[in-house]
Amino acid sequence: MTAPAVETPSLEFIFHPRSIAIAGVSAKENAGFGGGGFVQSLMDIGFRGPIFLIHPTAPAIRGLKCYKSLRDIEDEVDYVISSVPARHVPGLLEDCIAKKVKVLHLFTAGFTETGDAERAKMEQSIVARAREAGIRMIGPNCMGLYVPASRLAMMGGQPPEPGHVGMVSQSGMNAGEFVRYAIPRGVRCSKVISFGNGADLKAADFFDYLADDVETEIIVAYLEGIQDGPRLAQAIRKAGAKKPVAILKSGRTEAGSRAANSHTASLAGSLDIFEGLCRQAGAIRVESLEALVDMATTFQFVKELRGPNVAVVGGGGGASVLAADDLDAAGLKVPALLPETQAALAKVTAEAGTSIRNPIDTMSMADEESFRATLLPCATAPNIDAVIYHMGVGGGPMGSRGPSNFRSRVEKQAEGLAEIQKESGKPVVVVIRQSLTPDAVAQAIAFEEMCWRSGLATYPSMSRAAHALANLLEWQRRRP
Amino acid sequence: MTAPAVETPSLEFIFHPRSIAIAGVSAKENAGFGGGGFVQSLMDIGFRGPIFLIHPTAPAIRGLKCYKSLRDIEDEVDYVISSVPARHVPGLLEDCIAKKVKVLHLFTAGFTETGDAERAKMEQSIVARAREAGIRMIGPNCMGLYVPASRLAMMGGQPPEPGHVGMVSQSGMNAGEFVRYAIPRGVRCSKVISFGNGADLKAADFFDYLADDVETEIIVAYLEGIQDGPRLAQAIRKAGAKKPVAILKSGRTEAGSRAANSHTASLAGSLDIFEGLCRQAGAIRVESLEALVDMATTFQFVKELRGPNVAVVGGGGGASVLAADDLDAAGLKVPALLPETQAALAKVTAEAGTSIRNPIDTMSMADEESFRATLLPCATAPNIDAVIYHMGVGGGPMGSRGPSNFRSRVEKQAEGLAEIQKESGKPVVVVIRQSLTPDAVAQAIAFEEMCWRSGLATYPSMSRAAHALANLLEWQRRRP
Repeated sequence: MTAPAVETPSLEFIFHPRSIAIAGVSAKENAGFGGGGFVQSLMDIGFRGPIFLIHPTAPAIRGLKCYKSLRDIEDEVDYVISSVPARHVPGLLEDCIAKKVKVLHLFTAGFTETGDAERAKMEQSIVARAREAGIRMIGPNCMGLYVPASRLAMMGGQPPEPGHVGMVSQSGMNAGEFVRYAIPRGVRCSKVISFGNGADLKAADFFDYLADDVETEIIVAYLEGIQDGPRLAQAIRKAGAKKPVAILKSGRTEAGSRAANSHTASLAGSLDIFEGLCRQAGAIRVESLEALVDMATTFQFVKELRGPNVAVVGGGGGASVLAADDLDAAGLKVPALLPETQAALAKVTAEAGTSIRNPIDTMSMADEESFRATLLPCATAPNIDAVIYHMGVGGGPMGSRGPSNFRSRVEKQAEGLAEIQKESGKPVVVVIRQSLTPDAVAQAIAFEEMCWRSGLATYPSMSRAAHALANLLEWQRRRP
Repeated sequence: MTAPAVETPSLEFIFHPRSIAIAGVSAKENAGFGGGGFVQSLMDIGFRGPIFLIHPTAPAIRGLKCYKSLRDIEDEVDYVISSVPARHVPGLLEDCIAKKVKVLHLFTAGFTETGDAERAKMEQSIVARAREAGIRMIGPNCMGLYVPASRLAMMGGQPPEPGHVGMVSQSGMNAGEFVRYAIPRGVRCSKVISFGNGADLKAADFFDYLADDVETEIIVAYLEGIQDGPRLAQAIRKAGAKKPVAILKSGRTEAGSRAANSHTASLAGSLDIFEGLCRQAGAIRVESLEALVDMATTFQFVKELRGPNVAVVGGGGGASVLAADDLDAAGLKVPALLPETQAALAKVTAEAGTSIRNPIDTMSMADEESFRATLLPCATAPNIDAVIYHMGVGGGPMGSRGPSNFRSRVEKQAEGLAEIQKESGKPVVVVIRQSLTPDAVAQAIAFEEMCWRSGLATYPSMSRAAHALANLLEWQRRRP
């Protein structure tokens, strides 16, 4: 074996700009998308350097001084965000070169993805000119970067606390949705990169980078197309050898492929080939954005599973039956508990309308003591590898008249579950069934937060938990 | 062919009790489950007749007079709910016989489902005695009835407005979850029956009844086991011939089957055989409670689909690509729009970063006029059978700083979509992506309500909409 021919480019500088200029900001107040959106997002997350705006006529927008041209800015500019129309990009690029800018992020769309040959040619010549001048480009047609530690955000509402999940995404919207869905699960990001058409920097560059990045422990990706297949394959293999990797590959159908082509000029390629690549690279391929968040949650909190045998604990006969079906369908097992485990459970469980065989369907967990006395024997049982505790908020037979001391009750539950996870050395995960009213959602979020702060993975349905845990087992099998 | 040997029993009287007695109510305040739960649920929904409580010592509970025995009640009692321990049921039944009670609902559990031969025998002898005396029994081990028109509820929070969906459920919890999940979708129920072990009245009896019930237009069911297969098959065929039917059959795996047996003493039976039965009966089998709610929504609002060709309209390239994949995976088609349709869309759609091929990925729908000008050509396109409009609340590039006039904006959207559904004669359905904060959920619920009040089906994800529409097509093919 020889060493790989391609040297990993060090992209570190891209993620730490000291100053940013934004071209193409509307002078209208509350322009929420485009240039104005980036201004607001950077202000919201508290970007620490100066933000310079470029506008042909306005003296200032949102309190920030405007410059007629990038060249008029006296200070150094590390990073430029372009929201100008496509035809103005070549001029802006010349300004970037003159100004010795390091990175040009093209939010600007209207290039190869339009299907127009002239526009594709324009994209190519922009890339050639930037490379010649040593400027790296993100995009075009993308939302750019979310880097909490550098206080860079691509959208509103992105939290400033950094985490350990790095994301590579061909869609800004899906990157944003990933970040948003991850928040209530306790999953935070190191770097999120929306790279759109990937004219200069491509998925492979970012996989390479995240594989080496010390701040990134888990890598997830949303890909629409394959650019430079062999290089991407090499980068995913490198990432997969170092860190857990989960990838959502879209455009897998004819219509999806057409949409991907319109969206980011991507050629979707064969899903079979991509699945083969993931298998070989030790990466997990998922089918939805929700599953991608579930995998990040699972890699972060569950980490490892000894085997497929799950004990399911919660109230409700119907929910228990469906849970067993969901787990089995995902490839996990719900073995009958051993006589000694059942004997331990029989001591705390009321006789009628319940089961202690597995799933454990019981209403006898109201106080701390019986909660623990029910869950601990399950977690420590020799034929069990993980425990799933399931519950609902704001529904079920207890209905809206559930105990008013919700917060303190579930706080004790979260603590109790975390203790059992620690003592047993086996994963304990929590399924919180769908909450449908604002009040119930607020309660569910509060409980979720107690759980993840105690180190527990949470899932919004049994089926999603089942698939994530089964994928973790599959990942362990694939791991190089 | 001869006429069926079994006469359909008229169960109408079961659903219209004029008075109810509840045995086994805890004297403790706020006992939320069991007898006290039923008292509260009946009070909440506003049961119109008297509620008599039976308690050995308490003079009154929750303001309701208590009687030592059912026999001590002077008025007529139509319906008795039993929450007493199993060993007291035979005595209660004798009281029911003496009192000429018509229906005994046994919430009481601890019979066949325990796996204990003695308890199974007790269940059989209770059924024999009740039949001999002409009393019909619901249960044991079940939540009983939710009948809005009769102001009967089995749990808190069940709305008093009646609707047209009848449900047969072997699990009270899953019946309750169905009702709860259906509320924000605009789906209301005629009769919901949780029948547990089905010792006397069985699934077949309730299918038969709902098939004839004039208040029921759509039938859904949650079944764990098959009791008296040929009779159930006959009842499902009769129901399927008259009304749309969707069934969730659980206990399909070894663990699920074990859980079903512990839960309602059910023998799950082969899923292949059950699928064959559904196919023959013109019924649709689904795999989750969520899918059951989706089918009720689809039968109620969409009703009929001419073919599998869908136009997908919404903002966001990544969401569009995933949508196309989801629809294709479910068996629907997302055909490219014809040149003339694309030309009509080109007039209203900004050029860059969007697509008018299908999925239609556009941000140019902010005002009423362009909203209509985008959606109407899609709905009236000759190669399109249905339109799916997708949107998110509280996320995406617009983030938390979306327009403050949310309510009036989406109200116009719901009206506009309903107009287009009417004018085009083709279904227009709405997908509202996951909302994760209490505020966003409140907004999503408000929009959902505007939609269903305008006659539009709503779904919480593209994948769920896709599967429901594909199931509708399959149901049309199976329809006798």
